[in-house]
Amino acid sequence: MSPLKQIEHIGIAVKNLEASILFYTELLGLELINIETVVREQVRVAFIKIGETRLELLEATSPDSSIAKFIEKKGEGIHHIAFQTENAQQHLDYLKSKGIKLIDAVPKNGAHGNLVAFLHPKSTNGVLMEFCQPASKDIQRGS
Amino acid sequence: MSPLKQIEHIGIAVKNLEASILFYTELLGLELINIETVVREQVRVAFIKIGETRLELLEATSPDSSIAKFIEKKGEGIHHIAFQTENAQQHLDYLKSKGIKLIDAVPKNGAHGNLVAFLHPKSTNGVLMEFCQPASKDIQRGS
Repeated sequence: MSPLKQIEHIGIAVKNLEASILFYTELLGLELINIETVVREQVRVAFIKIGETRLELLEATSPDSSIAKFIEKKGEGIHHIAFQTENAQQHLDYLKSKGIKLIDAVPKNGAHGNLVAFLHPKSTNGVLMEFCQPASKDIQRGS
Repeated sequence: MSPLKQIEHIGIAVKNLEASILFYTELLGLELINIETVVREQVRVAFIKIGETRLELLEATSPDSSIAKFIEKKGEGIHHIAFQTENAQQHLDYLKSKGIKLIDAVPKNGAHGNLVAFLHPKSTNGVLMEFCQPASKDIQRGS
């Protein structure tokens, strides 16, 4: 099994992206890497660097966004943990065979050409987990 | 300001420590570092290694534990993020001067002789944040 080498990012649902960026940069002294809009997911995203990993601040761009629904239900806060792997499909197949419920049985295209897939939090003690497989010419696939 | 170099750990509130350890080790292939009981905090804790950081699985040993109350209110899931710093007091003083609400105005003794302090999630967009300062002979203080 391809090991989970590190935490790729920690997703944090926020109401106001600019205010949150200021908190992490001005008050905590962390570095903003970039801001982007992921149209399909209806979110604006800011990545903040910390050590080998990143904080992914997520602001909904529509009330239909899963981030808007999360905030409505639970309030702002930590939304998910993403693990980096070189073979997300292998992990998904193994977990499914062990009875773990998946949101994505097959990885989908995410930001930066990464392949991403989520596990269902009902099977992971309430923790929304993502596998994130970096883009590679050898392992690209259609969505 | 002493920079926040990395995420020291991510705290995850769980109902059953042994079942959760099995999920992270057997199903995700991660490494269990150790299990300990923190009597003062009324929790049993398992540390799981991933990259430069760790997942801290937290199980309440009493209904009065903050972890038991968290699970009662929000269910199992991600509880807090801890940032590693060489000078927690400096960060606390600076954040307080900027109007950020603190749970601990002065770091307290945590596991492994570390100094730890929490910010109030009301000031951090719902994210419970901890500063964790590794033990050092030069900077020890009484609790």
